[in-house]
Amino acid sequence: MTRERIYLFDTTLRDGQQTPGIDFSVEDKIAIAALLDEFGFDYVEGGYPGANPTDTAFFDRKRTEKANFVAFGMTKRAGISASNDPGLATLLQAKADSICFVAKSWDYHVKVALGCSNEENLESIRESVEAANNAGKQAMIDCEHFFDGYKANPDYALSCARTAYEAGARWAVLCDTNGGTQPAEVRKIVEAVIASGVPGTSLGIHAHNDTGQAVANSLAAVEAGVRQIQGTLNGIGERCGNANLVAIIPTLALKDTYSNRFETAIGPEQLEGLTRLSHAFDELLNRSPDHQMPYVGASAFATKAGIHASALLKDPQTYEHVKPESVGNFRKVMVSDQGGKSNFINALKRRGIEVRKDDPRLDHLISMVKEREASGYAYEGADASFELLARRTLGSIPEFFKIDSFRVMVERRFDSHGRLKTISEAVVKMEIDGDTVMSVAEGHGPVNALDIALRKDLGKYQTEISDLELVDYKVRILNGGTGAITRVLIESTDRDGVRWWTVGVSENIIDASFQALMDSIIYKLMKNRQLAGRIAAE
Amino acid sequence: MTRERIYLFDTTLRDGQQTPGIDFSVEDKIAIAALLDEFGFDYVEGGYPGANPTDTAFFDRKRTEKANFVAFGMTKRAGISASNDPGLATLLQAKADSICFVAKSWDYHVKVALGCSNEENLESIRESVEAANNAGKQAMIDCEHFFDGYKANPDYALSCARTAYEAGARWAVLCDTNGGTQPAEVRKIVEAVIASGVPGTSLGIHAHNDTGQAVANSLAAVEAGVRQIQGTLNGIGERCGNANLVAIIPTLALKDTYSNRFETAIGPEQLEGLTRLSHAFDELLNRSPDHQMPYVGASAFATKAGIHASALLKDPQTYEHVKPESVGNFRKVMVSDQGGKSNFINALKRRGIEVRKDDPRLDHLISMVKEREASGYAYEGADASFELLARRTLGSIPEFFKIDSFRVMVERRFDSHGRLKTISEAVVKMEIDGDTVMSVAEGHGPVNALDIALRKDLGKYQTEISDLELVDYKVRILNGGTGAITRVLIESTDRDGVRWWTVGVSENIIDASFQALMDSIIYKLMKNRQLAGRIAAE
Repeated sequence: MTRERIYLFDTTLRDGQQTPGIDFSVEDKIAIAALLDEFGFDYVEGGYPGANPTDTAFFDRKRTEKANFVAFGMTKRAGISASNDPGLATLLQAKADSICFVAKSWDYHVKVALGCSNEENLESIRESVEAANNAGKQAMIDCEHFFDGYKANPDYALSCARTAYEAGARWAVLCDTNGGTQPAEVRKIVEAVIASGVPGTSLGIHAHNDTGQAVANSLAAVEAGVRQIQGTLNGIGERCGNANLVAIIPTLALKDTYSNRFETAIGPEQLEGLTRLSHAFDELLNRSPDHQMPYVGASAFATKAGIHASALLKDPQTYEHVKPESVGNFRKVMVSDQGGKSNFINALKRRGIEVRKDDPRLDHLISMVKEREASGYAYEGADASFELLARRTLGSIPEFFKIDSFRVMVERRFDSHGRLKTISEAVVKMEIDGDTVMSVAEGHGPVNALDIALRKDLGKYQTEISDLELVDYKVRILNGGTGAITRVLIESTDRDGVRWWTVGVSENIIDASFQALMDSIIYKLMKNRQLAGRIAAE
Repeated sequence: MTRERIYLFDTTLRDGQQTPGIDFSVEDKIAIAALLDEFGFDYVEGGYPGANPTDTAFFDRKRTEKANFVAFGMTKRAGISASNDPGLATLLQAKADSICFVAKSWDYHVKVALGCSNEENLESIRESVEAANNAGKQAMIDCEHFFDGYKANPDYALSCARTAYEAGARWAVLCDTNGGTQPAEVRKIVEAVIASGVPGTSLGIHAHNDTGQAVANSLAAVEAGVRQIQGTLNGIGERCGNANLVAIIPTLALKDTYSNRFETAIGPEQLEGLTRLSHAFDELLNRSPDHQMPYVGASAFATKAGIHASALLKDPQTYEHVKPESVGNFRKVMVSDQGGKSNFINALKRRGIEVRKDDPRLDHLISMVKEREASGYAYEGADASFELLARRTLGSIPEFFKIDSFRVMVERRFDSHGRLKTISEAVVKMEIDGDTVMSVAEGHGPVNALDIALRKDLGKYQTEISDLELVDYKVRILNGGTGAITRVLIESTDRDGVRWWTVGVSENIIDASFQALMDSIIYKLMKNRQLAGRIAAE
């Protein structure tokens, strides 16, 4: 049976720009467009040339090689001719393959926002599409507020979509701009559009996540006949985000309900690059990745409970909804005090540590982990600390250097100009290679100072750790109060882009930070020697 | 038209416990159960008594007043009688109103995980339900892997649900344990269950978010006839999370598609407490709130684009899918702060601070709060710091004492016996009543030492603060890395049992802690003089 083609339209660089806290520079956009192009999206919407300098500059060249490069903007203004509309002129001149015009399709908006008649609005749609086609570009219309517009005045909304189609637009995209439409309503309304004369092969869906159903709405629209899906990487977008393409693409590819009937440009091999794409995007924007994101999240295939261990481990299909490798992710069987022996052995195996089930040191390791976790350590979130502990317990690791003592001081006082300032200073005394080394450093705060001092002079290891970087620092107080247990988690990375977590626990936050910092450095040194950090293929 | 009742079942404390990075202590569970009970959930599933010490302790008392308190566990083991099953006995003895038994409903799991026959599994279901009913408790069965089980062997899966129902279970809950089922499949399979003889009024849905559709799957099940929804606060849960009740509840209440046909125990007034509930939960667990969460997220009603300004601002219905106030959230229009002013005036009024809308100091206060919040302060969680800031800005507060300087030192070294120890010491220099006072103290850690030193000798105020007690201390690192902004929140209490929160923000954790400690002491002194802390009736 021939499968029908679904077109994937990425609006990360256009609608995604509306995300609170995100502002793309031209360089950001160029890099992201390259990622999207390489991955295989059909359409890459680059922005709104003419609306701001960044986007105007971005469109002075076509920025994709394979993907259709789309410029976004408004329909021709009512009351002036197409050739006299400067906004339209900018769009036509942009170095894009297609233009996506946003048009009002809710009569109330036509009146209040545009201040023109319903008929004039349809004319604007028509003339914009014709202008784009005449300029040799593909035209599409984003029917803004379509579903709410349909509920308010179904005939008018339908006429907007139909006008776009009849004028020669390749796509009329139905936008749930406010994000409140429910899947059953989406299905019903899409069916009405198709019944009114616009074929599904010319219809797109643009959903927002305001009720947590952007993915479901997009798929519901496809089930009803739509053949283009608009969304963003990692579901970024204003308010609650756009439809998350990272969740939609593998669902279309791996779930029979869809994969039997539809195909996209993303084949199995490209699909394996999905996790990497999602992470690269977060990296580029310095965003904390969502560990619980469907398919690609660090926890998406992580099992905590011992319930799933032993016999079932042999048949992952029984507890995993898809193979993690198919999207470039992998299974994590997490170490926790709820897990059984099998969990441990697998966790060790993944790190290239083989141990026999009856090895007494394994029991020792397990009981140590349980004990430490009862006192605050959380090894499931600190893979590197776990690996170091395991290697020490089941064997040994080199003692690269020894910390004799450290001292951290925070002082707040008035400086010579009468201004209040706070100074943080750390002194570290260590032994490397038989020599005693003392380092002092200042920092933004006590932990920063200690971190700098620790890594300031590591003798023969100094160049080795030059690419070691701390990227995240988390503190959790357990049991409350200021005399309670503090757990510190530190995330580190290096030139390879690999990330690892280390943990420290103490009543004393500086002590806890020290433990986590030390583990980070030791792990890096071990990793450099391939003594740690190898993730075994499954 | 009479609306049908949908029952809300919260499994935050049971399935939510499987969330990577979450570990509830008994105190955590007690606090959360109280929040859930107060909000109005029908069922609160507290955990798995017998599986671990925390849960066993949690069930030695009923922990809710209104909500049905549910204990979770496994069905009776095959091969032994109900009276001889220790796990079952623990469940029956737990101080719960109901027991929710998880039962295999996928024949492959029955064979490989339980190692018994299909018929024995049905018997286990039957006898577990009977045992619970005989003990005067409501029984329900979580049909694990139901949808996958149905696809593999529909007759067997149906027989599991039917056996539960016929044995007298109040609910048979259909669980999408692997999280991969699609909404259309959920609808179809739920219809099959109802057609096989189990009425929708006895069916529940337990969805997971592995394809980003847990909310949609839950609502699809309801559309098909199910009448109980299981989920968690803020969608926590293993892998990609459980169904997010925070998105489901307002969708049921505010979207005609559902609100015309269904009702829950959450009326409009409780619904207004939703945002507070979601935030309180994150605070309790020291989790970063998801700003983009549907309905309750800080950005859920935030508009960045200028597109929605001017004329449309007058008619929010045209760009907002629901009224933010209906869920206790508020609109953030980044263009103007007109909406924000009323919020402020109300917040001040509650603290007995009257201010006129046109008072220029009010504008000053508002802009200061915005500025500080942009740099990390979170006043909505630090009521006492907000009040102090407001009183200082709109008037003045007494200067009880002045801190000239402080110094905090943490040293880790070997003591005279060759043992490694860490010492924390703080020195504080202050002026009280024209005298200079210096105090030194040691503590468990740097913040504890500073706290003790600050309060050690406050001259004439010493007896006044003798009942001041720090009960909680929370740290959050904003922007990541060790050079990032640290926010410290301190909760204090005194003899009256009143609790108040203060906040401090700095690159330096000691500095941030110092700010929060100072605000706590000043607030106590103000409160003693009835200059602060009066909560006006609303």
